[in-house]
Amino acid sequence: MVQIETDILAKNNAYAAANRRRFAEHGILALNLVSSPGSGKTSLLTRTIEALKEEFPLAVIEGDQQTANDAERIRQTGVPALQINTGKGCHLDAHMVGHAVDHLKPQDGSVLFIENVGNLVCPAAFDLGEAHKVVILSVTEGEDKPIKYPDMFHAADLMILNKIDLLPYLQFDVEKCIEYARRVNPSIRVLQLSATRGEGMALWQQWIRATRQVALVGHSAGEAP
Amino acid sequence: MVQIETDILAKNNAYAAANRRRFAEHGILALNLVSSPGSGKTSLLTRTIEALKEEFPLAVIEGDQQTANDAERIRQTGVPALQINTGKGCHLDAHMVGHAVDHLKPQDGSVLFIENVGNLVCPAAFDLGEAHKVVILSVTEGEDKPIKYPDMFHAADLMILNKIDLLPYLQFDVEKCIEYARRVNPSIRVLQLSATRGEGMALWQQWIRATRQVALVGHSAGEAP
Repeated sequence: MVQIETDILAKNNAYAAANRRRFAEHGILALNLVSSPGSGKTSLLTRTIEALKEEFPLAVIEGDQQTANDAERIRQTGVPALQINTGKGCHLDAHMVGHAVDHLKPQDGSVLFIENVGNLVCPAAFDLGEAHKVVILSVTEGEDKPIKYPDMFHAADLMILNKIDLLPYLQFDVEKCIEYARRVNPSIRVLQLSATRGEGMALWQQWIRATRQVALVGHSAGEAP
Repeated sequence: MVQIETDILAKNNAYAAANRRRFAEHGILALNLVSSPGSGKTSLLTRTIEALKEEFPLAVIEGDQQTANDAERIRQTGVPALQINTGKGCHLDAHMVGHAVDHLKPQDGSVLFIENVGNLVCPAAFDLGEAHKVVILSVTEGEDKPIKYPDMFHAADLMILNKIDLLPYLQFDVEKCIEYARRVNPSIRVLQLSATRGEGMALWQQWIRATRQVALVGHSAGEAP
């Protein structure tokens, strides 16, 4: 059983390495967005796309067990999106993402958002070749999630606390949540925002811009920083 | 024995967390430069400082078992530098760095270079609160170092292959070295340069600039990206 799991991860890692090489060659910043269902990932993504789509090329890979609703929502923004249905699978893997990139053909210098299946467990173990995992946590979910799902918060470089406009109506301790996240991942960055109200969205966009410049170092796509 | 080691690391991690919070509050990008002795870290640092010191504030913490020569070399560039002598110790720890920062008082928006003790083993385990560990490997050292010292290359976000001007005179397989590094750390970035000849230095400076902008997201120090 353990052997099988090791084999699956080794195979995934080889595909992830190929994806990462390809992203580097094309100056593509790939962000793997992970969360539990209902954290507001797709709303965050559509607002982010609306704000950034004139600045640089964007592309989206949507992962869901069933339905193509999310890719449809994204396509309405005018940005290319491809839906992957994982069926019984609880996460995207690097092989699926490689195929999706074959079809999407993101432009050089793109930001590629990969919206993973809503799940705080399975996606943690699967490297897709992304530059960063970004974990989105809605403040409606409770501040204990980082210590209940440590693998995911350990794997992420950035935690987004979403729906902060609801804080006045909730018992959610922001400081405690951040402390929990740092307990499992001392160097995790935290941004607080409300995708629907817009508060904090400017910082998230600034983070994407700056992170894209890091990804572009040594690449001819896009302007120099 | 194991218990003692755990206690030491737990204590170090608490100091590292405090350093990291302080760096975040002051918009300081801290880079922890690690390598074996003689990789050319101090030369790389002095050239980097000369190139960047007019763009934004810089500060340096120098770690060595003995002597204050390196801090003296840095101070000649006009940038504030503080020497820590670790005596028998083979690495800096977060507590030492916290004290050094108390004395150095880097300006808001600074890049703080922490040149660790030349050693490819001990510094890997000690978080100093830095944003990134940068491992410098001279091509004169042989391409097998990433798999011989996997902890260090696993802990680093960026590998600098230094002294590439000597490649024509060496049996050093750059591709193999990068493959080894990615085997222990799939997402490691690699830059190739010659600190003395200048080749590749522009990319390294570009990486520092872009990474500093990421550190500045949400901070008022420094210009918006």
